[in-house]
Amino acid sequence: MIKRIAPDVEIVDITHGIPPQHVLQGALVLANTLPYMPAGIHVAVVDPGVGGPRKPVALRGSAGRVFVGPDNGLLLVAADRLGGVEEGVQLANEEYMLQPVSATFHGRDIFSPAAAHIAAGIELSDLGPALVVADLIRLEVPKPDIGARRIRATVLYVDRFGNVQLNLTSGDLTRVGILPGTTVEVEVGFERYYAVAARTFAEVRRGDIVLYEDAYRNVALAINQGNAADMFSAAVGQELRLSAP
Amino acid sequence: MIKRIAPDVEIVDITHGIPPQHVLQGALVLANTLPYMPAGIHVAVVDPGVGGPRKPVALRGSAGRVFVGPDNGLLLVAADRLGGVEEGVQLANEEYMLQPVSATFHGRDIFSPAAAHIAAGIELSDLGPALVVADLIRLEVPKPDIGARRIRATVLYVDRFGNVQLNLTSGDLTRVGILPGTTVEVEVGFERYYAVAARTFAEVRRGDIVLYEDAYRNVALAINQGNAADMFSAAVGQELRLSAP
Amino acid sequence: MIKRIAPDVEIVDITHGIPPQHVLQGALVLANTLPYMPAGIHVAVVDPGVGGPRKPVALRGSAGRVFVGPDNGLLLVAADRLGGVEEGVQLANEEYMLQPVSATFHGRDIFSPAAAHIAAGIELSDLGPALVVADLIRLEVPKPDIGARRIRATVLYVDRFGNVQLNLTSGDLTRVGILPGTTVEVEVGFERYYAVAARTFAEVRRGDIVLYEDAYRNVALAINQGNAADMFSAAVGQELRLSAP
Repeated sequence: MIKRIAPDVEIVDITHGIPPQHVLQGALVLANTLPYMPAGIHVAVVDPGVGGPRKPVALRGSAGRVFVGPDNGLLLVAADRLGGVEEGVQLANEEYMLQPVSATFHGRDIFSPAAAHIAAGIELSDLGPALVVADLIRLEVPKPDIGARRIRATVLYVDRFGNVQLNLTSGDLTRVGILPGTTVEVEVGFERYYAVAARTFAEVRRGDIVLYEDAYRNVALAINQGNAADMFSAAVGQELRLSAP
Repeated sequence: MIKRIAPDVEIVDITHGIPPQHVLQGALVLANTLPYMPAGIHVAVVDPGVGGPRKPVALRGSAGRVFVGPDNGLLLVAADRLGGVEEGVQLANEEYMLQPVSATFHGRDIFSPAAAHIAAGIELSDLGPALVVADLIRLEVPKPDIGARRIRATVLYVDRFGNVQLNLTSGDLTRVGILPGTTVEVEVGFERYYAVAARTFAEVRRGDIVLYEDAYRNVALAINQGNAADMFSAAVGQELRLSAP
Repeated sequence: MIKRIAPDVEIVDITHGIPPQHVLQGALVLANTLPYMPAGIHVAVVDPGVGGPRKPVALRGSAGRVFVGPDNGLLLVAADRLGGVEEGVQLANEEYMLQPVSATFHGRDIFSPAAAHIAAGIELSDLGPALVVADLIRLEVPKPDIGARRIRATVLYVDRFGNVQLNLTSGDLTRVGILPGTTVEVEVGFERYYAVAARTFAEVRRGDIVLYEDAYRNVALAINQGNAADMFSAAVGQELRLSAP
């Protein structure tokens, strides 16, 4: 659809691998990835509410970035991390949609056409009425519960290596006394494991469980040359408890 | 291969996710997708008969479209939907193949080079002898059995959301009295389920089974925010029975 | 990252489907694929030693090819097959890295930026000090054990069709008397199967096990319209024994 409307546009795919309906995972992947990409018109669609009352939107961010997608929180983790939203519109002008608009595939019929028309020079204001930015839906990223020597954390997502991203920063680890080299007890349900806090996989032995700051500055659990998600049966939203010695 | 022969050509991937050997699924995905794409040279390869007597072909469709692939029915569902085939040739001119041609990978050695040469300006007639279009192989898409209040339908394919596409149109549903809002009994083997006919997922509750017209105008079964194929253990070619109340 | 540094560069993906940590599989896919691709700057990252002492490198091959990736053997099977390495440098100049360099994602922070800068015209010698090519790490591809009528072979990789590539050439088969049409006994662990040596799948019946030279001139086992890896529970590194009658 984009190429039909704006044939000269260059399309860069981030991923087609977000599990169906996982809006938070989509939002986090977008927020992790966009800071490393050229500014552009960023279309994202994880859209379990398609066809319902959720609004299709286009948002102008800073530095020439535009975000296009459903108003379900998917876009805002990234947009906020990249300087916030300056203005937004609801995609309502049917002239810039593929007609007839289907009830279940707005990625094809609304979002991609809108992005292509923006790339071709249309103003956001041509696409529909302005929105109140403060009213846009924001996802609640679960907050960790941080005690004196213990942290109750939540799995945010699992990547294709089986690495388990937690809702923690390396600062959170430092606060409870977990530093590179520390052995950390990890409880998942009634199971107990021991991980090593480390800066790189190369610091630990093959098969060791590693607690580390990943390349996006999120704390994650991994197994050196193994699959941590399989070992922990970790799923998005699951709770883990970490204890400093 | 395409880039070696026609470096300036733009390649747009539709999918590399057709299950091995599923010619019908490939044909349906192609037919569902191409109407939304720019006209071009459309190469498709799902080719269980590679190396055998099935012919490699290039077909001129309407509006500047060319279809390249094996003569096993893969191309014709799409070509027929887009206005039919005007002329066709068998790919036989070895000058336009990668030599030596392997016995098992004609996508690389015959189809991609042919497409690239067509993009670079070669005439179809340079690629090999003309074919009788009426002799091209056509797939039999299974026909539903439609009674007074019941339909016996077949699963055509399952997408990555687990949505189950049937060989039905919304007109078939109307004929047996299934309208938006109707509760429909679905029998799969000896199991019985209840689905709601709906226009969008947003009209039903989370977890409901939905019978709906999908974005390609095919009737499909889905579970709102779930995986219908998993629940029904649905596989391509399987029969389902739908009953209006 | 590449597009930020060299916006006009054209990126061609080979695969994002190498199983995590499988350096040998990555090396073989690269070696199988590159001979059919245009010369270019070839970036490959399968990098279990990321953050450790393994060196990040850029290597100049023949005919204008450049290889960028970790010095763990990933690049050399392909580079050797394409004429060898003329010169190499260790990627050490921090000016051409994304700062701060993460401990676990050198694909983003070191390899892609280096490739982009090379594409943009930087000399290899600007990226870091020269390496002794003979000191680069080479993978040991397992050698088959070939007797009078028997071969002990190793699974090198399994593709998405379930075809099982072995560390054999068709010359190895000929030496033990396996020719097209020969029935071959295949032992996997304590299980025994019968395969037919054939040139194409079209020569055998549906469901037959086929021993054939694949499109990359490697010997492989497949099941016509089936999945050989599933039947044999074949995994990379596993041994098989083939016996001529």
